[in-house]
Amino acid sequence: MQDPREPSETLRSVSSHSLEAQWVVGFVDGEGCFFIGINPHPDMKVGNQVLPEFTVVQHERDIQLLYALKRFFGCGVVRRNHADRMAYRVRDVNHLRERIIPFFEKHPLKTRKRQDFIKFRKVLLLMQRGEHLKTEGLERIRVIASQMNTGRER
Amino acid sequence: MQDPREPSETLRSVSSHSLEAQWVVGFVDGEGCFFIGINPHPDMKVGNQVLPEFTVVQHERDIQLLYALKRFFGCGVVRRNHADRMAYRVRDVNHLRERIIPFFEKHPLKTRKRQDFIKFRKVLLLMQRGEHLKTEGLERIRVIASQMNTGRER
Repeated sequence: MQDPREPSETLRSVSSHSLEAQWVVGFVDGEGCFFIGINPHPDMKVGNQVLPEFTVVQHERDIQLLYALKRFFGCGVVRRNHADRMAYRVRDVNHLRERIIPFFEKHPLKTRKRQDFIKFRKVLLLMQRGEHLKTEGLERIRVIASQMNTGRER
Repeated sequence: MQDPREPSETLRSVSSHSLEAQWVVGFVDGEGCFFIGINPHPDMKVGNQVLPEFTVVQHERDIQLLYALKRFFGCGVVRRNHADRMAYRVRDVNHLRERIIPFFEKHPLKTRKRQDFIKFRKVLLLMQRGEHLKTEGLERIRVIASQMNTGRER
C-alpha cells in the first residue's frame, strides 16, 4: 500500500490523469470543502452524530478527475451529488485522519479555506479523544462547526 | 524582466505568497475563466469589438491570492468584480499572447476548461491575423465564442 502522505510521488507516472500535489492543493483551494455535519441520532447517548466530510464537487463531464483524486488519496468514493454534479467524498474517519489531514498539513492550502481545514482537524482530534460522545464536547464541536465555511460561494 | 514562460521558477522563493505552477493550474482549473466578449462598437468597420479576457474571481477575503497571481504572471489587474467578489483580470492582448497562453501550453489544465483555453487561444490567433476586423472572421470568432464555457457552474 502506498504511503498516504506521499501519494503524488507514487502515482505521478501511472497515467495521464495522475496528479501533482500542488495541483491538488490549488484545485481544493478552489473547489474543495471541509464540512462537519451534526445530525440527530436517537441511538446515541448525546442524541447526535458528528459526521466530518471532505468533498470536491464537479460537473459530471470532469468525473475522471474525481476518480484521479480518489486514486491520489487512496480512499473515498465518487458519487452523484445532485443533477449533473458529481462528488468525490471522504467520510471514513480513519481515512480523514491518516490520509487527508496529513496531506494538507504537509501541503498547506493558500486560500482562507485553510482556516476551515484547521477547524476540521481540531474536530477530528476532539473525536479521537471521544469528546463527541459527551454533551460538553459535542457543544464545543457545534461551535467550531458553526464557524466553518462562512465565506462559501455556493 | 522575468521570462513569462517560467514565472514560478523566479518567484518561488520571493514571498510566502509566491505560487507554484501546478498550484496555479489547479486553482485555475477550479476558479479560472477564459472568456471572449463581443461588444457592439460603432467606430469599428465590422460594428463589433472582440474582447478576450482571462479572469479569476474570489471572495475579497482572499484578495492577497489574486495579487499573488498578478505577480506570478507579471501582468493583469485586481479589481472589484461585484459585491464582495474581487477579480484578477488580464485583457491586454499582448499579455494574453505572451504570458497567459504560453503558461497554459506548458502546464495543461486538467479539467474540460482546457477545451475553453484551446478555443480562447484560437481566437487570439485569429485576432493576430486581423480576422476580427473582417465580417467573415468576426462571424467565425462568434461561433467559437458561443461554444465556450458551456458547462459553467455560475
